[in-house]
Amino acid sequence: MEQVRSLSQLIEEARKLCSEKGRKRISVAMAEDAGLISAIEEARKLGLVDATLVGNSEKVKACIEEAGANETDYHIIAEDNEAKCGIVAVTEVSAGRADIYMKGQLHTDNFLRGMLNKEVGLRVGKNAISHCYFHSIPGYDRVIFIADGAFNMYPDLKMKKDIVQNTVNFARSLGVDTPKVACLCAVEMVNPDMPCTLDATALVQMYKRGQLKNCIVDGPLALDNAIDEEAARIKHIKSDVAGRADILIVPQIEVGNALAKSISFFAKGSETAGLIVGAAAPVVLTSRADSPRAKLLSIAGAVMLAHHQG
Amino acid sequence: MEQVRSLSQLIEEARKLCSEKGRKRISVAMAEDAGLISAIEEARKLGLVDATLVGNSEKVKACIEEAGANETDYHIIAEDNEAKCGIVAVTEVSAGRADIYMKGQLHTDNFLRGMLNKEVGLRVGKNAISHCYFHSIPGYDRVIFIADGAFNMYPDLKMKKDIVQNTVNFARSLGVDTPKVACLCAVEMVNPDMPCTLDATALVQMYKRGQLKNCIVDGPLALDNAIDEEAARIKHIKSDVAGRADILIVPQIEVGNALAKSISFFAKGSETAGLIVGAAAPVVLTSRADSPRAKLLSIAGAVMLAHHQG
Repeated sequence: MEQVRSLSQLIEEARKLCSEKGRKRISVAMAEDAGLISAIEEARKLGLVDATLVGNSEKVKACIEEAGANETDYHIIAEDNEAKCGIVAVTEVSAGRADIYMKGQLHTDNFLRGMLNKEVGLRVGKNAISHCYFHSIPGYDRVIFIADGAFNMYPDLKMKKDIVQNTVNFARSLGVDTPKVACLCAVEMVNPDMPCTLDATALVQMYKRGQLKNCIVDGPLALDNAIDEEAARIKHIKSDVAGRADILIVPQIEVGNALAKSISFFAKGSETAGLIVGAAAPVVLTSRADSPRAKLLSIAGAVMLAHHQG
Repeated sequence: MEQVRSLSQLIEEARKLCSEKGRKRISVAMAEDAGLISAIEEARKLGLVDATLVGNSEKVKACIEEAGANETDYHIIAEDNEAKCGIVAVTEVSAGRADIYMKGQLHTDNFLRGMLNKEVGLRVGKNAISHCYFHSIPGYDRVIFIADGAFNMYPDLKMKKDIVQNTVNFARSLGVDTPKVACLCAVEMVNPDMPCTLDATALVQMYKRGQLKNCIVDGPLALDNAIDEEAARIKHIKSDVAGRADILIVPQIEVGNALAKSISFFAKGSETAGLIVGAAAPVVLTSRADSPRAKLLSIAGAVMLAHHQG
């Protein structure tokens, strides 16, 4: 497949892939939100997904109608209890009847409890599950992936290693064959007084020893020399990543969160979506504040990853 | 004076202020850089500054010529030793013969040693000196200030308090009478597992007790609800700051650095400058990679602050 270089192209590539290999099925926990169902309906009409909607069946049906969709196009599983909605919806995925686990109206805690449940949840061994923001930005010829700006707060080196690999695997599902990974810090020099520069060196060495696969890792890098070739040149940084990073691994949640939101709000013409990766199946956790377009883009990303994960 | 709402307007307001109250004098340590002198020459022609250039007099004169400037317009102090250039230049400021301390070609360490020197440096008591990025961003009706993304790496609460007040004082010099200060985190809820949300609450309470002056402080806030009124509304945040922040106080250097560089690189049409504040005089520390325009904007900011500090 072609490398997805923008989020508009993402929709197109997801359509192509699904027309060849078939749709993926989303399982939605507490699907009692007409806005969410509208986004799913759009993805369904584009041929990306079918959906299983778990929730109070009266409310789910009312939301389907409000979204202008047709109830016969959906599989509804009646479940009135909020916490159980998460368990029922995630079981559809772990039992192989659906491919993507998605949050509806239940509280995030209940949704994540489903994801992490030891019997029916989606953890793979001890691998850390992580969040990935992904963006298209005018002037940049590639999708920029940022992790982790939303899920893991203060990852240690072990978790950062998993975050890198999770994000690389997702980028590869979008056709970025060998993603360039920048370990983002405030500086490009190793500074013993700045712990994230030391984690960056360890991640680089893990990559060189083959402990991180299908990617190129370099760091520490600051944002300018990670994403701008001219900035990297001025600083005389010799690197296969500097200036051309696809993936920015941030030291902690405050960095990734501010960076992703900065792109979303300050970079006119940009598009932003997010996905939880590193689980047995893609997990979509959008917020009510997300636009319908952002929800659709997150679903499209999940569909690509679901195809990639097999 | 009018509130400066963009960095273009900053130049205009600095011109007005200097035509009323006179120019400010910059003292440049190791002024052996034609690019830097070009920026100073432009500020000089605009009526903002006069300059004292400390360095090897042959080299300084060659740079003046290369910059297309006239050596009779400058006061040159001959000093061949790099470390002494910092001491001599900062002494010009602390002795009252200049108003702004600026870095030339000497290493940053030597420049800062001048700034922090106990006899002739610019520290005011135990007040932390801090860096402030300031930006104009298309679509925003005000200058956005970010601190500290370049100088203090991992400030504790005591230092954060100084950083807030330093940045507020600088914003006020640009006519923002009562700056709205957001303590930036990844979330808007107080979370005992996220230390920066606790520092944010302490800063809010310091403000309420009058320990932070001439500003309004709120936090924790995430970037979206700090700067976007609609995002703040969706989250039902009641706050005089949310959605309308002028100043973003970041928890640590990686956050501010990535955020400022994100604006600079991703927000088309934005402008970015930086300044060191909280010392007895404004301190300009630009990098060779900065554009001539960025250098001029930093000088203009320093001139405004120098007038404000008296």
